[in-house]
Amino acid sequence: MTRVLVLNGPNLQRLGSRQPDVYGTTTLGDVAAGLAAAAPDGFEVELRQTDDEATLIGWLHEAADTASPVILNPAAFTHYSYALHDAVLIVTETGLPLIEVHISNPQARDEFRHVSVVSPVATGVIAGLGTDGYGLALEWIVRRAGRAR
Amino acid sequence: MTRVLVLNGPNLQRLGSRQPDVYGTTTLGDVAAGLAAAAPDGFEVELRQTDDEATLIGWLHEAADTASPVILNPAAFTHYSYALHDAVLIVTETGLPLIEVHISNPQARDEFRHVSVVSPVATGVIAGLGTDGYGLALEWIVRRAGRAR
Amino acid sequence: MTRVLVLNGPNLQRLGSRQPDVYGTTTLGDVAAGLAAAAPDGFEVELRQTDDEATLIGWLHEAADTASPVILNPAAFTHYSYALHDAVLIVTETGLPLIEVHISNPQARDEFRHVSVVSPVATGVIAGLGTDGYGLALEWIVRRAGRAR
Amino acid sequence: MTRVLVLNGPNLQRLGSRQPDVYGTTTLGDVAAGLAAAAPDGFEVELRQTDDEATLIGWLHEAADTASPVILNPAAFTHYSYALHDAVLIVTETGLPLIEVHISNPQARDEFRHVSVVSPVATGVIAGLGTDGYGLALEWIVRRAGRAR
Amino acid sequence: MTRVLVLNGPNLQRLGSRQPDVYGTTTLGDVAAGLAAAAPDGFEVELRQTDDEATLIGWLHEAADTASPVILNPAAFTHYSYALHDAVLIVTETGLPLIEVHISNPQARDEFRHVSVVSPVATGVIAGLGTDGYGLALEWIVRRAGRAR
Amino acid sequence: MTRVLVLNGPNLQRLGSRQPDVYGTTTLGDVAAGLAAAAPDGFEVELRQTDDEATLIGWLHEAADTASPVILNPAAFTHYSYALHDAVLIVTETGLPLIEVHISNPQARDEFRHVSVVSPVATGVIAGLGTDGYGLALEWIVRRAGRAR
Amino acid sequence: MTRVLVLNGPNLQRLGSRQPDVYGTTTLGDVAAGLAAAAPDGFEVELRQTDDEATLIGWLHEAADTASPVILNPAAFTHYSYALHDAVLIVTETGLPLIEVHISNPQARDEFRHVSVVSPVATGVIAGLGTDGYGLALEWIVRRAGRAR
Amino acid sequence: MTRVLVLNGPNLQRLGSRQPDVYGTTTLGDVAAGLAAAAPDGFEVELRQTDDEATLIGWLHEAADTASPVILNPAAFTHYSYALHDAVLIVTETGLPLIEVHISNPQARDEFRHVSVVSPVATGVIAGLGTDGYGLALEWIVRRAGRAR
Amino acid sequence: MTRVLVLNGPNLQRLGSRQPDVYGTTTLGDVAAGLAAAAPDGFEVELRQTDDEATLIGWLHEAADTASPVILNPAAFTHYSYALHDAVLIVTETGLPLIEVHISNPQARDEFRHVSVVSPVATGVIAGLGTDGYGLALEWIVRRAGRAR
Amino acid sequence: MTRVLVLNGPNLQRLGSRQPDVYGTTTLGDVAAGLAAAAPDGFEVELRQTDDEATLIGWLHEAADTASPVILNPAAFTHYSYALHDAVLIVTETGLPLIEVHISNPQARDEFRHVSVVSPVATGVIAGLGTDGYGLALEWIVRRAGRAR
Amino acid sequence: MTRVLVLNGPNLQRLGSRQPDVYGTTTLGDVAAGLAAAAPDGFEVELRQTDDEATLIGWLHEAADTASPVILNPAAFTHYSYALHDAVLIVTETGLPLIEVHISNPQARDEFRHVSVVSPVATGVIAGLGTDGYGLALEWIVRRAGRAR
Amino acid sequence: MTRVLVLNGPNLQRLGSRQPDVYGTTTLGDVAAGLAAAAPDGFEVELRQTDDEATLIGWLHEAADTASPVILNPAAFTHYSYALHDAVLIVTETGLPLIEVHISNPQARDEFRHVSVVSPVATGVIAGLGTDGYGLALEWIVRRAGRAR
Repeated sequence: MTRVLVLNGPNLQRLGSRQPDVYGTTTLGDVAAGLAAAAPDGFEVELRQTDDEATLIGWLHEAADTASPVILNPAAFTHYSYALHDAVLIVTETGLPLIEVHISNPQARDEFRHVSVVSPVATGVIAGLGTDGYGLALEWIVRRAGRAR
Repeated sequence: MTRVLVLNGPNLQRLGSRQPDVYGTTTLGDVAAGLAAAAPDGFEVELRQTDDEATLIGWLHEAADTASPVILNPAAFTHYSYALHDAVLIVTETGLPLIEVHISNPQARDEFRHVSVVSPVATGVIAGLGTDGYGLALEWIVRRAGRAR
Repeated sequence: MTRVLVLNGPNLQRLGSRQPDVYGTTTLGDVAAGLAAAAPDGFEVELRQTDDEATLIGWLHEAADTASPVILNPAAFTHYSYALHDAVLIVTETGLPLIEVHISNPQARDEFRHVSVVSPVATGVIAGLGTDGYGLALEWIVRRAGRAR
Repeated sequence: MTRVLVLNGPNLQRLGSRQPDVYGTTTLGDVAAGLAAAAPDGFEVELRQTDDEATLIGWLHEAADTASPVILNPAAFTHYSYALHDAVLIVTETGLPLIEVHISNPQARDEFRHVSVVSPVATGVIAGLGTDGYGLALEWIVRRAGRAR
Repeated sequence: MTRVLVLNGPNLQRLGSRQPDVYGTTTLGDVAAGLAAAAPDGFEVELRQTDDEATLIGWLHEAADTASPVILNPAAFTHYSYALHDAVLIVTETGLPLIEVHISNPQARDEFRHVSVVSPVATGVIAGLGTDGYGLALEWIVRRAGRAR
Repeated sequence: MTRVLVLNGPNLQRLGSRQPDVYGTTTLGDVAAGLAAAAPDGFEVELRQTDDEATLIGWLHEAADTASPVILNPAAFTHYSYALHDAVLIVTETGLPLIEVHISNPQARDEFRHVSVVSPVATGVIAGLGTDGYGLALEWIVRRAGRAR
Repeated sequence: MTRVLVLNGPNLQRLGSRQPDVYGTTTLGDVAAGLAAAAPDGFEVELRQTDDEATLIGWLHEAADTASPVILNPAAFTHYSYALHDAVLIVTETGLPLIEVHISNPQARDEFRHVSVVSPVATGVIAGLGTDGYGLALEWIVRRAGRAR
Repeated sequence: MTRVLVLNGPNLQRLGSRQPDVYGTTTLGDVAAGLAAAAPDGFEVELRQTDDEATLIGWLHEAADTASPVILNPAAFTHYSYALHDAVLIVTETGLPLIEVHISNPQARDEFRHVSVVSPVATGVIAGLGTDGYGLALEWIVRRAGRAR
Repeated sequence: MTRVLVLNGPNLQRLGSRQPDVYGTTTLGDVAAGLAAAAPDGFEVELRQTDDEATLIGWLHEAADTASPVILNPAAFTHYSYALHDAVLIVTETGLPLIEVHISNPQARDEFRHVSVVSPVATGVIAGLGTDGYGLALEWIVRRAGRAR
Repeated sequence: MTRVLVLNGPNLQRLGSRQPDVYGTTTLGDVAAGLAAAAPDGFEVELRQTDDEATLIGWLHEAADTASPVILNPAAFTHYSYALHDAVLIVTETGLPLIEVHISNPQARDEFRHVSVVSPVATGVIAGLGTDGYGLALEWIVRRAGRAR
Repeated sequence: MTRVLVLNGPNLQRLGSRQPDVYGTTTLGDVAAGLAAAAPDGFEVELRQTDDEATLIGWLHEAADTASPVILNPAAFTHYSYALHDAVLIVTETGLPLIEVHISNPQARDEFRHVSVVSPVATGVIAGLGTDGYGLALEWIVRRAGRAR
Repeated sequence: MTRVLVLNGPNLQRLGSRQPDVYGTTTLGDVAAGLAAAAPDGFEVELRQTDDEATLIGWLHEAADTASPVILNPAAFTHYSYALHDAVLIVTETGLPLIEVHISNPQARDEFRHVSVVSPVATGVIAGLGTDGYGLALEWIVRRAGRAR
């Protein structure tokens, strides 16, 4: 059984009510349910959210220790948390996939959102496709695992 | 009864002893007492302090959920915490007032203090007027509430 | 009797008609009336406006010579007039208070409004609180004078 | 029948032989075959490649005129072709989806690859997931079309 | 007979339908008709459009070889095509007039539109006056030719 | 009768003698005479010049109050006077046309002349066409007024 | 008895397994043991690690309150945590020594590691000497204490 | 008789009382007296001061018209007044000498004082030598006039 | 037989007439003739020119496919065509030599000519030696081929 | 016998008298004596100082040729001497240790001192610990030599 | 007897022949003779020139040790030699005057000449007045010495 | 007899042993021998090397005085020595050729190597062609001399 960790950063528990014109009305609970339904046999999905940088770092260490692929929406940490950068690298230097997901398209918003300190060490990035981004990331992780076998 | 949240960021519990030539000798306790005394009928003031970004974000979510006006001294978070920026926007996009207060004048200090990532989404800013800034912010919140009625 | 000079820079005589979504509909005359009403015994308020940098500099020299506290809204001069910077320093190096007031929040507007060449030598700044900013500045000047006695 | 245009920019006909450590050994022909196999009923996929900026712009005009969703790998044009930026906007201002796809992760490569002049007007971006990015983009376009019905 | 070349860059064939709030509803055909009507005796106007940088460069060489004054709307090439810069210089170093025309005002739009690599070698610039800019440019070319005689 | 204000900034009274290789030998008086001769029925032209920023701002206020279209050559104020920026906006936010005119081509001269703080709020810009720029601006204002009727 | 606090920031509990080519195979436990063995009479060493910015700030406040010299490896916080900057200053403004230690040489790594927001308020810096840097810092603290007596 | 104009910019009438540690206690009156005493036969010195940019520009035009050498202390205008830059050029393009004088050394003060927009078109600069700078400038003008004969 | 491709970018067909003070009066035809004469046995030289980026890219692909050494004068493409950068890399990653040649010295001309996006992936650069640069490049290619045997 | 070269750059012979508040009163002679006393058996220390870049480079070549570990205080050369950078690399590419030592903390001083062109190729850096930095560097070199055996 | 050291940096022995349009035809020998003639009783002038940074630094140390005022033309060292910066500070921190002299006006020449790393620690600067600058510097040193007595 | 000076900057005596993957194994002695063998009748070649900026400057003066063409490899001085820039100009302003040679391709290496302060005043540049660059430079000098006759 492969567990995929779907980790979400600060303010994302407000999803669905916060700036609905930017982020839509889907909630993180909806996302979790959708991913659970989409996960094929042999995969389980665990979605978590935290406003706390240290907690997020700890979850990434856990992913490295348990060989769990990661779907990461770092939210605003994207733009300044080099501690997160280092923790992401701890995951990806093991060869585990880590997909950075953004619900909206950061390049179409405030200037400060144009820079990601996480992307250089992530496996890949999906942005601007709404909460569907999570599902696409999961699908890719599954597809890749199939190839690796 | 309107509760005004007076939220203070990292290192501000040292107020009164830390760099007294910059910040003066008034403590946060003194500030809380002064604000309590100054709050008119129908208003109560709750002063909190934390060194923890996530805790501060949680308090801002609470403010949005309880429709509490906010007086926010983000301290050093002012200069880099985009997570705080997003949380402040969660408050002000509801129309609630949030006043950013700085005890000293950041523009007259280190270069890194010249940029605030919080100001663009705050209602307004009061800086350099010592701990009186908190009281002026409260007064404005009260005055504005009176006009809104 | 302490005279407080309330000095306003270029285009501010248009207040109330210019960009009302940004600046509101209150006029400078309204501001002057409000401040006069709010001034306690022993304080008189004199509000002036000019589009002329030299005139504004002269008023600041007058403030220094007559020991008048100053409330200054430098308007667009904020962003480039180093001559005003020097004149403000002539006031504040004497120990007189000078509060920089902005009706709107410059940090939430055009990029060029994010820099103030006046703030580093002002006593403090109040921004984004509409024309109430003038009243709060006056109140602080009065309060400070009380403490100084 | 919805036709999805899969448009590829300069040098991408070399895919499979050029820098295989960066881009892998899959060819564009392989990609086209994979997308054709993956396209559900009601969708056909047309993959094209050109080294010519004007040709690529013309294809984007065609997409706007024929209401074809677009998967676009702008290759090196990503980093400087404002003409492409304008053509992409001609597609997306109609409400059509356009997904920017990068096979490798530009943020993990040369500095000049960190800026995309296309992203601000694209619907979304998928990067770093190899040639699977095309398939995920197609899937999203299909899914979105299903929702829109 | 003096032939004036009116050369238009990428995406301008979409004029009239693309972003009508920015560019209006006049088409290039309308512009050509208007210029033909406005051209005085001894002048004919030839309007061309291309998305292709090399074609545009070729037309500028033709202008230099046939001593044709040029009205040039470089569209997005304005902001990065140094090849166009060099071709424009080939025209103007002969003393021929070349007017750079922009339908909208680039300084009031995206940051990347604030820089023109063409202007330093153009004779002059007309921007923000809608498609009237072409007519004014023609008029100036005619007037200048009259003076030169 | 529509009065068109033709406003000129610092040092422009020297036109005709100052740097004749850059600015030519036409004087401002010549310009005024030419515009008067060119003004059609229903239009009168009033040309003014000042070295004084405040005076220029006042004239722009007058234009807004009297609904006078403006032709503005801000000369060196172009590059730093945000006070002028604000005054220009007071004119154009009413829907009045204001054309920024430069006799020489600023993009072909000193680096500091490459930035205009006025252009973003002007209706349009004409540069590098010598003193003919004034006449073309007038013509456009007249043409636009004809369309508006 | 002088207690020396050896404080370590985010991801440093991974020392020994994370990027061994950069950081070596020594663990934090090894470091603690080595420092304990090296501490002379009258000195005890307490090594702590946290991923949490607030916890680290709290430990620095504790150092100031208990007059404990500090050896600080801020890890990735080095590059953005102004909150840590302020907390470090709370230690060093008392005259206590605080040595910033980096195991690898930040100047020889990613560009973002070239800036330390902590160094300007630290007593000194030791970088690039592997985990020996901790021991050298301890030795200096002991030597300095001897001189101060 | 050669008249030398000694022109002083904003806030310089405060010389002698303003920031005496930076500018000393000599007044402008003292400077005028000293220069009058030092002027040799055939030279008279006229010292003026203004806070007004337009007035200063007018005096420079006067210098050009009356062929008067100029000693100019532009004070804070040094750092932003491109209008002054243009007026200075009107003087020096005639071949008249114009010496820029600064009482203090701008390179040893605030960052914004490190740039002079006037220097590139001045004949020369004397800075940091106190009010003696005026006298040295006069002496050079006299010496140069002697050589020119 | 080794074929050396001598590829020339935009506007270079004007060589000999365009800016003769910068580029001299030699034409590309002269260059081709000179190279043909200079080519030793076993080498043939084919000189081509295009204003078209895509054509140039195609020629570079051809060079890679036919193992032809390249002499490339990218003209203005030097400064922005990342598509060319990628195509050059396709040549040089095979180990083929590619010499970037500039007739004039770009470092002694406009600022925008100081950056080459091609140089980092070229084998070497010859600049400022007029059209002799082509011959020296050919000679080096021949000499290198001799050594490789 | 291992000889450790302790090389000092420009102005360091003034140590002890120059800016004693920054650098203390210890002289280089004192440093040499202290290091000699501290060197264990099998190690000798040779301290040199020069103001001459070429001499310093020569000493580094000598270190490479004689396999001598280096303690280097490059003084002001730190901030611009790329020649020194290259010479340091000649030492460290052999695997010899080279410790960069700064007596004061450059990050707490002038902005130009914040950049070291030497650090990226040094083994490590010790800064801000006064002249003790030399001793700590020696100790580390000795310790490392012990491990290498 | 006060000895004034007149120290000249690299390439200045070419004065009189090098770029005579910029530097004139006066030689350093002429300058030395002129200063000798101009030195009043009690002052002697010693003019030296070197291309060697270390030699120049040594002369500045000598000035500090012999209490000799300095006139320094650092030539190209002005723009990068921080070692010279430190040596100049060794002179001026003793209270000795050191005047930086430039024969031409650096602000009117290449961009790299606009920055002086020496000025912030010099007493004052004289630039653009030709070789007369030396004489004016001497005169000021003499005048200042007279006042100090 | 024309003597060609082949001047080499700091660290180049290490050629052949230093970073052989970057610079190859040819020594400067080999280069000198090769050039001597290649020099045609009427030309002699003198190769020199120095780590000393002043010596290099002196050699350039000698070249100007003896009308010797120069081949210059400035090594690391390339990136900061404005003194060398001035000395190179002393050569080339006489019309003598001076070719800047780099063995490796600086644009493909560290960022600091991307800027040459020497190139703007050199006749031309040859880079990245290994030690063959010297020979090509010599050949060009000879060819040019032949044409000049």
